[in-house]
Amino acid sequence: MTFLELVNRRRSTRKYTSRPVPKEAMTRCLEAARLAPSACNSQPWHFIVVDDEALKNKLADAAFSGMYSMNSFAKSAPAFVVVTRDRSKYFATIAGYFRGIRYSFIDIGIACEHFILQAEEDGIGTCWLGWFNERAVRKLLGIPGNKKADIMICMGYPEETQKIDKIRKSMDEISRFNK
Amino acid sequence: MTFLELVNRRRSTRKYTSRPVPKEAMTRCLEAARLAPSACNSQPWHFIVVDDEALKNKLADAAFSGMYSMNSFAKSAPAFVVVTRDRSKYFATIAGYFRGIRYSFIDIGIACEHFILQAEEDGIGTCWLGWFNERAVRKLLGIPGNKKADIMICMGYPEETQKIDKIRKSMDEISRFNK
Repeated sequence: MTFLELVNRRRSTRKYTSRPVPKEAMTRCLEAARLAPSACNSQPWHFIVVDDEALKNKLADAAFSGMYSMNSFAKSAPAFVVVTRDRSKYFATIAGYFRGIRYSFIDIGIACEHFILQAEEDGIGTCWLGWFNERAVRKLLGIPGNKKADIMICMGYPEETQKIDKIRKSMDEISRFNK
Repeated sequence: MTFLELVNRRRSTRKYTSRPVPKEAMTRCLEAARLAPSACNSQPWHFIVVDDEALKNKLADAAFSGMYSMNSFAKSAPAFVVVTRDRSKYFATIAGYFRGIRYSFIDIGIACEHFILQAEEDGIGTCWLGWFNERAVRKLLGIPGNKKADIMICMGYPEETQKIDKIRKSMDEISRFNK
């Protein structure tokens, strides 16, 4: 499969079977994320995998209740990854303030997408989740105060193959050459 | 090549040959970026490709002079992409303020990494550049005031194969299971 085929095939998965994610596949996803590039090689990420069924259910209840219930579809996923963000290295932080850029967010984007594309290659569906009760998740997992839990990824084998077309801007809308 | 092999092989390229980047390869990179997922499908990105030699040289001089000269190695690259960031869609912006997350940075990270991995598959080297004279770049390319130019990517065929080992935190440092 070419990279473009992989990217093209990947869809957000919102219905999962109960089949567990094999440890080897999870390790491959983490390895792909671990190898991601980052500003000044800061590697400002940490991945908390939750695939123990009892803890997973508690986590899903904590994360997707009340005003966060629009993501409650994720409760059917057999595994979650909570991605926390650390500070960047000193130079990246200073340079970022100077330029008005938060490099650590860009870095989290890169590393999580590595994780997600590796899952896709193994036939495992994923969905990015940015809207969840962070306070409840931090409390349940004992995440220290100096780390932000920005992103959750839910994952598992898709209940059905997604056939929805990707809706994207045209090439002309997103690019131009030499002007 | 598996996805993990692709990720593992990719290095920042800091020395380029003068061989131009073929249009078909550039288009594949843009297509991989175009298909990237984003918060609320905002697609808050625009890619300005600069591969005209005269303009490319002007751009490199504008971007990497004075206090930005630590990235002057990039001047040898035959092509640049300036990546601008738009606002996210309304819900993503509001949700981001509420959660203290700038989703548009994460989205830029994903799309640029798609671009970069597609280049790697085609044997084209790249380097992320976050430290450049944005004001001079905006002026030269006529980038409107409502778009931030966060990232530049320089690209071309590598002068030599990079053999430097990736320096990364260990798996234990970046991940844990169910706790």
